[in-house]
Amino acid sequence: MTKRVAIIGAGPSGLAQLRAFQSAKEGGADIPEIVCYEKQDDWGGLWKYSWRTGLDEYGEPVHGSMYRYLWSNGPKEGLEFADYGFEQHFGKPIASFPPRAVLFDYIEGRVKKAGVRDWIKFNHPVRRVEYDDAKGQFRMVVQDQVGDREIVDYVDHVICASGHFSTPNVPEYPGFDSFPGRVLHAHDFRDAVEFKDRDILILGTSYSAEDIGSQCWKYGCKSVTVAHRTAPMGYDWPDNWAEVPKLDRMDGKTAHFIDGTSKEIDAIILCTGYQHHFPFMEDALRLRTANRLATADLYKGVAYVANPRLMYLGMQDQWYTFNMFDAQAWWARDVIMGRIALPDEATMRADVEARIASEDAIEDDYGAIRYQGAYTKELMDETDYPGFDVEAANQAFFEWKKNKKKGIMEFRNNGHVSPLTGTMAPAHHTPWNEALDDSLKSYLQTG
Amino acid sequence: MTKRVAIIGAGPSGLAQLRAFQSAKEGGADIPEIVCYEKQDDWGGLWKYSWRTGLDEYGEPVHGSMYRYLWSNGPKEGLEFADYGFEQHFGKPIASFPPRAVLFDYIEGRVKKAGVRDWIKFNHPVRRVEYDDAKGQFRMVVQDQVGDREIVDYVDHVICASGHFSTPNVPEYPGFDSFPGRVLHAHDFRDAVEFKDRDILILGTSYSAEDIGSQCWKYGCKSVTVAHRTAPMGYDWPDNWAEVPKLDRMDGKTAHFIDGTSKEIDAIILCTGYQHHFPFMEDALRLRTANRLATADLYKGVAYVANPRLMYLGMQDQWYTFNMFDAQAWWARDVIMGRIALPDEATMRADVEARIASEDAIEDDYGAIRYQGAYTKELMDETDYPGFDVEAANQAFFEWKKNKKKGIMEFRNNGHVSPLTGTMAPAHHTPWNEALDDSLKSYLQTG
Repeated sequence: MTKRVAIIGAGPSGLAQLRAFQSAKEGGADIPEIVCYEKQDDWGGLWKYSWRTGLDEYGEPVHGSMYRYLWSNGPKEGLEFADYGFEQHFGKPIASFPPRAVLFDYIEGRVKKAGVRDWIKFNHPVRRVEYDDAKGQFRMVVQDQVGDREIVDYVDHVICASGHFSTPNVPEYPGFDSFPGRVLHAHDFRDAVEFKDRDILILGTSYSAEDIGSQCWKYGCKSVTVAHRTAPMGYDWPDNWAEVPKLDRMDGKTAHFIDGTSKEIDAIILCTGYQHHFPFMEDALRLRTANRLATADLYKGVAYVANPRLMYLGMQDQWYTFNMFDAQAWWARDVIMGRIALPDEATMRADVEARIASEDAIEDDYGAIRYQGAYTKELMDETDYPGFDVEAANQAFFEWKKNKKKGIMEFRNNGHVSPLTGTMAPAHHTPWNEALDDSLKSYLQTG
Repeated sequence: MTKRVAIIGAGPSGLAQLRAFQSAKEGGADIPEIVCYEKQDDWGGLWKYSWRTGLDEYGEPVHGSMYRYLWSNGPKEGLEFADYGFEQHFGKPIASFPPRAVLFDYIEGRVKKAGVRDWIKFNHPVRRVEYDDAKGQFRMVVQDQVGDREIVDYVDHVICASGHFSTPNVPEYPGFDSFPGRVLHAHDFRDAVEFKDRDILILGTSYSAEDIGSQCWKYGCKSVTVAHRTAPMGYDWPDNWAEVPKLDRMDGKTAHFIDGTSKEIDAIILCTGYQHHFPFMEDALRLRTANRLATADLYKGVAYVANPRLMYLGMQDQWYTFNMFDAQAWWARDVIMGRIALPDEATMRADVEARIASEDAIEDDYGAIRYQGAYTKELMDETDYPGFDVEAANQAFFEWKKNKKKGIMEFRNNGHVSPLTGTMAPAHHTPWNEALDDSLKSYLQTG
């Protein structure tokens, strides 16, 4: 009897899963029936840009949090697919911090070559997943948007690869309800030019805050004020950029901070993070975890302990991304195909606890990078995924962090060494802060 | 055996249903068990204002399409509850076009008096409704957001009162993906001051276009350009307001219209309507209808013909609103309580067809108003709802339409006659275009 496997989402994680199964098939293995349900009309997940915000053309929450002019905020050498390098895809070495279109092209290149597009049902959001004890299968209700009808699908395994940077975490502060301007979450940020000549207030200190603030600065906002709850980011910011303590309240256009200072503001951008959100999962299957390196309830960070026929990919907080998703996808594939045996539930629970304890013992970001590199390696070593030099990738991250400290608006002008080829990336032809054209064509020009 | 009834939504329609059951109970009747599941944290539906857009604090689509400074765009005399008039609530006659806070207060006044708040479970979005043939009941999956857990509820009747002005219809035009400014649907419009000194483009010619444009004009936008697909609205607009033919494409900031004209634009507001959207309903229960006076598949505009244990309130395109919802709610109540018998399916289908044919024969807006007035009266006459003078309400609508033609920025300065009390509403103390304070306190001041 053939097993049937459903993958939810055709972003980097879901595509990694498709590629994992396709590579087994290519190697002569008998693989399960695969279907991938994707809400959007194309693959790429967050790397697909859409101008839409809020709800999409079918009334579903817009998946994308991508904005125009985004360049990778980490070195591409930290995320390179081990089975499909950047140099292989582009035919030459390219610079280390590609804009969105370049990364999308790279992601797409591998799965086009693999020929897995037919496995994906686009415009098919998953409405409901329940485990049917009697059948020993998952009952999935999926909406076929183009056909305007529901599909009920019974499958033996579900791999949830729907991401966790799509559902914003949106706090409220006093005065938001009467602020005479736009209040938006980073999820809805699309084009920095909207904020040209404006005084913007950013709440939050993580990647969105850093990068959206930098975008607005690059495209000519009047000032950036970033309010932090615990500590400032502490980079050497431009002159029209200030880090201030926590917002206390808005009073009309005036932001009041808890140190008694204030600032007139035109727009408020909430860079306050995202929720792990799986409204389609019945309670017994729904992952509840903080955004951390060691997720709750996932054996090896992948198999849902309470019902390991369900797996979750990419649900960790991330230093490693595409290559970690690959490691997970190959591992998930091998569990489903019986190449890897799962231990009993107690052992799986102990694994989850041990990972949490190890993460809790990490002292700094460098330790966190090493931890996630080691996790990725652990999974890679259990499968036939080609693997890559994790220590070299760690080094790229370490240098990147130091470069950011040296110059937050200049770090993207540096190159890093590929952990696949050992090649040092060339410098981009134009410094990031002067490169207003973020197209693939412009980026690939030899400067 | 006690019947159990679930109402989805605690907006004007859902609250009408609660009031209908409560009034039967007050009259000594034995009523079913009632539960009302409401996604928001308070009642009032669209009349509850929130600064939030896109997704709410729990990651659910924001229900509200309400914006700051909104005043009723139709006369309150056309929507007055027959069992609870404006004069009864406010203790004196008030002017005819109240701002949101005043209408919210009025809606709330009736249900506070009725004491039905305990029947409502707030922060409880409905995830799934399926009819269980074996049980002869509906299986509802509801998310308890505060408790972060699912509830499964079996009920005998479902009354869907979730509204149809929450899920935007969002078309795409060439160039939207590279427009360097905000593109938003009316659903996400919150505060006109954001567009002060800006050139805005509005697509659409219905109420949202008319009113959001007027708001932006009132609060100081630089210009309003409204593009229509079929015909202009044709009012006597202010000097900085233009009606133009259909948008062809955006090219950067430049809007090109199909007549070859163009205009530089800072923001695009899509006033392109809403979808009837019930993602929680299984296919067999999901209403699919155009936004029209005679909905598809609803006997008497209420009972879902394929399974009339399911009813839908307020799903019509609307001239009449609160009072029509009341008429429907009292009628739905009486069907559930066995006071009104439903005919066989063929007769119900014939009723749907007849209503559609009658609507198709309507010649103009005046005919449409009469049609919906007559429909409301038809339902009222079958129940003990107090009723009101429909002809008087029609007259209020007719005068309102004429006033709009006379002065689109002045029509709200007129008063209309209450169909309940026969009282002529006083003029508001300040002309609408000068009244920047939309608070209840300001509105109720005797000027």
